[in-house]
Amino acid sequence: MTEPDVPGSRKVSVVLFEGFELLDVFGPVEILSVLPDQFRISMVAREAGLVASSQGTRVEATEGLSDTADVDIVLVPAGLGWLKLLDDKDFLNQLRSYVADATLVTSVCTGSAILAAAGLLEGYRATSNKRSFDRVIRHGDTVQWERRARWVHDRDRWASSGVAAGIDMTAALIADLFGPTAARHAGDVIEYDPQTDPDHDIFADR
Amino acid sequence: MTEPDVPGSRKVSVVLFEGFELLDVFGPVEILSVLPDQFRISMVAREAGLVASSQGTRVEATEGLSDTADVDIVLVPAGLGWLKLLDDKDFLNQLRSYVADATLVTSVCTGSAILAAAGLLEGYRATSNKRSFDRVIRHGDTVQWERRARWVHDRDRWASSGVAAGIDMTAALIADLFGPTAARHAGDVIEYDPQTDPDHDIFADR
Repeated sequence: MTEPDVPGSRKVSVVLFEGFELLDVFGPVEILSVLPDQFRISMVAREAGLVASSQGTRVEATEGLSDTADVDIVLVPAGLGWLKLLDDKDFLNQLRSYVADATLVTSVCTGSAILAAAGLLEGYRATSNKRSFDRVIRHGDTVQWERRARWVHDRDRWASSGVAAGIDMTAALIADLFGPTAARHAGDVIEYDPQTDPDHDIFADR
Repeated sequence: MTEPDVPGSRKVSVVLFEGFELLDVFGPVEILSVLPDQFRISMVAREAGLVASSQGTRVEATEGLSDTADVDIVLVPAGLGWLKLLDDKDFLNQLRSYVADATLVTSVCTGSAILAAAGLLEGYRATSNKRSFDRVIRHGDTVQWERRARWVHDRDRWASSGVAAGIDMTAALIADLFGPTAARHAGDVIEYDPQTDPDHDIFADR
């Protein structure tokens, strides 16, 4: 979807690919959508059309990665398709071009490995899914991978831990942009109590 | 999607309608999908095809409500479209027929009002979204609405509070069917720490 442009709102481009993880996408999208004056959400894929998730359910992307240069916040999820993308030079080049003008680049779960493989995390701190961590950290030459973190925010990059951690990261991003009251409001509306400490990570030891 | 039938697995039919809430659907679907030998998930709507969420993103339903009698667990979400459905006798009749042979009927957020309007919660305890609670409880003659609850489980009915509460309810349903270890495993894989106390509801007072 592409909502009509609200003046001052930020466009959030969610990058879908075959085998994306549903909650990586729709957790963040849900909490952002509480604030339609602040965020307008767009599903983007290699080409516009239906994209199958890891779970099989197909979701519509309304924009192709090369359709537009109108980019603000980009979110890259993970899902079973992530491993295939790491060697897909065409996709990684497209992604690199797409995010070139983005103000913020964010990832959920092993989406950070995709960003790293595209060279988009060099010199940044980042985290990722805990169960895939040892595979993730092979990507990127100068990424400072942090194993224990619910999410990592380093300048214009935000990377969350696995799947559900994306919701907490997004709440923190809302707080960073619009203050903690806005983030708490967004959580309350969807009856979600976000983790507000990026270093609190009970899954690092499981 | 309809996954190939795994012997012994339970089919979970998620009822989509125009204006459904994304996280109401994809929170529960995400945690169920960790256990593909136990659950196979199907998106069902009035008719098969693309269905627009509250947020605009369109998702594919692969089955129509009258296509099949193969029903086991049914999940009814909420979303902006819920109010329209309460007076839609055709839809409510279709839903009533659809769930007639279900072993479990579940709802997220004001999905419980849709169930109540269809007469499917008579004599049951249930809960719902806190911000819409006063509107919800007008539906159903003998429903025992509980204002303070993360979710309510009463025999073959499960109803959760607003949006994100659906994930906790679903984790509890997994625990009820397959034990707490299975539920904890499912939570760990998606790095989600479910609330396990159905009476712990911080949003009842907000």
